Amino acid sequence: MVNDQPIDFWFTMGSTYSYLSTMRLPEIARATGVSFRWRPFHLLVLLKEMKHVPFADKPVKSAYMWRDIERRAAMYGIPACLPAPYPIPESERANLVAIVGMQEGWGIDYVRAAYRRWFQAGEPNGSEANLSASLREVGQEPARVLALAADASTRDRLTAEVDTARSLGLFGSPTFVVGRELFWGDDRLEDALDWHRAGRLTRR
Amino acid sequence: MVNDQPIDFWFTMGSTYSYLSTMRLPEIARATGVSFRWRPFHLLVLLKEMKHVPFADKPVKSAYMWRDIERRAAMYGIPACLPAPYPIPESERANLVAIVGMQEGWGIDYVRAAYRRWFQAGEPNGSEANLSASLREVGQEPARVLALAADASTRDRLTAEVDTARSLGLFGSPTFVVGRELFWGDDRLEDALDWHRAGRLTRR
Repeated sequence: MVNDQPIDFWFTMGSTYSYLSTMRLPEIARATGVSFRWRPFHLLVLLKEMKHVPFADKPVKSAYMWRDIERRAAMYGIPACLPAPYPIPESERANLVAIVGMQEGWGIDYVRAAYRRWFQAGEPNGSEANLSASLREVGQEPARVLALAADASTRDRLTAEVDTARSLGLFGSPTFVVGRELFWGDDRLEDALDWHRAGRLTRR
Repeated sequence: MVNDQPIDFWFTMGSTYSYLSTMRLPEIARATGVSFRWRPFHLLVLLKEMKHVPFADKPVKSAYMWRDIERRAAMYGIPACLPAPYPIPESERANLVAIVGMQEGWGIDYVRAAYRRWFQAGEPNGSEANLSASLREVGQEPARVLALAADASTRDRLTAEVDTARSLGLFGSPTFVVGRELFWGDDRLEDALDWHRAGRLTRR
């Protein structure tokens, strides 16, 4: 029996490991036939509530993170010029733009363009340079989109997504949600696919 | 060309995810021909230095951790009665006993017996009940071993291992070390095996 429910892909534009997922998902969706619902949210709100901002003031763990991402990006054939700037100051604006994009249909393309710029050219998500170039790349006029992103209705939508994420028990990005099961981390994407297909993890 | 160097398996007896590794390693060593050097260390010293004690006061993340371990234990066919008691107060004593055991040759059997009791019967590593039963199970007299574990020379050896772990950049358990590469987490064991065999991660 094929599970035709989508997997919810929750991500925040300030997350490093989410780069791997944004690059991997389209090919995985094609190969498996599984659809993913891309759901940007502003994770930082939840992390501050939990007093748990990962990697901040943790140089040893941060050094490991970059090496881990570098090795795994190479495994997947994903280009990466590391370390990328981190943490980044304007991830909220990038999330707001992503919200607009998901509503208008160019969101996935924007998110992937923006992440490429951040991880391949050192332009952080949400920065002026990244926003302008990424939006033009996906055929959108930056001034129009940024005005929409700054509108109260967009912020309300982002806040509503954060509220939903909180209620689901999310605490990290990326998180894949299959039914009531959470799978945190790009390295749990295969677990999420297993669960979606079989309702359990299958030995690999 | 076969790599006949061992992989260093660094672990601390207070770590939850290390349960999966202690259960999996013997079979993996047999199947791959790779040897693992089991190196108990008292990670808590390093975590306190880094002001980073995972899961403490993080109920949302802790709930996820147990579910993640439960799903993955089921995938590997490893019994688990969860949540197990956590955090546990006497992990240092368990690490000291493990140091004695590695020196005397029964360390791996003790560690696995102790972890089974913690994760299958709810007796934390380092507790009186766990220590007595686990040591007897591996043919050791608890009074003799506990006296050795309390000896200054054993503490010195544990401290030396913590110093080595710090110099390697370790911050979590389990960590697999292959040459100069660190692989943190039971879920990076396959990455470590890849690196040991091929010097890179191979796509799975």
